[in-house]
Amino acid sequence: MKNARRPKAPPPCPINAALIVLGDRWSLLIVRNLMFARTTGFNELQRAGEGMATNILTDRLAKLIAAGVIEKRPDADDGRKWIYSLTDKGFDLAPILLELSRWGVKYEKGIAPDGVLEAYEADRKKFLASLRS
Amino acid sequence: MKNARRPKAPPPCPINAALIVLGDRWSLLIVRNLMFARTTGFNELQRAGEGMATNILTDRLAKLIAAGVIEKRPDADDGRKWIYSLTDKGFDLAPILLELSRWGVKYEKGIAPDGVLEAYEADRKKFLASLRS
Repeated sequence: MKNARRPKAPPPCPINAALIVLGDRWSLLIVRNLMFARTTGFNELQRAGEGMATNILTDRLAKLIAAGVIEKRPDADDGRKWIYSLTDKGFDLAPILLELSRWGVKYEKGIAPDGVLEAYEADRKKFLASLRS
Repeated sequence: MKNARRPKAPPPCPINAALIVLGDRWSLLIVRNLMFARTTGFNELQRAGEGMATNILTDRLAKLIAAGVIEKRPDADDGRKWIYSLTDKGFDLAPILLELSRWGVKYEKGIAPDGVLEAYEADRKKFLASLRS
């Protein structure tokens, strides 16, 4: 029908937009390891990742780099290896991980490292700044 | 070797524990729809879910019910249908969704409903209480 109005597309939901990038459990565990455990190499990430298969780790690292959440640079000690780290966009996932942690402690018998959630509650800005330093 | 000390298992990470339950994008979108869009029936959930396939919706609803995140009761208007709603454990996922939303607005061109993130920032407790009412 000519001149019929098309239904307006809904505005892009930011939750859905975020979940498209973060995708699945493994992506967020990689971000967790880079943020809190300070693991930085491929082998370390694999050992830290609750049994993450090599092909999954490779795939998710590539996707997170493409999305600008993490970046990589050659390892100064061994040029054949890469060092992975979070970008600002990646560090800004900290509140999501901390809220996941709080929920996991409350309902799923998770145990957060001593003092982490308390420090986050007491002064969020200060705690988030300390993660980057 | 007798009496050799076993390496102590690390304490269960609450982030991992939460992600095991929440699993994937679809689970969190179902929780989002029950929380913010107030959709409650299977057909409504399917229409609201960014093209969620019937088998995925069925599977994730069953998992979320098993995990105690949502519950279902027969529809008073049509006994063949179910009405789905969040449990307290499900409502406690709100801060995770709001932090995902904030990140999706900042980095992924998402658009949150007017005033939602501002209201959350201004008074978290009040905002979270209002979601349940």
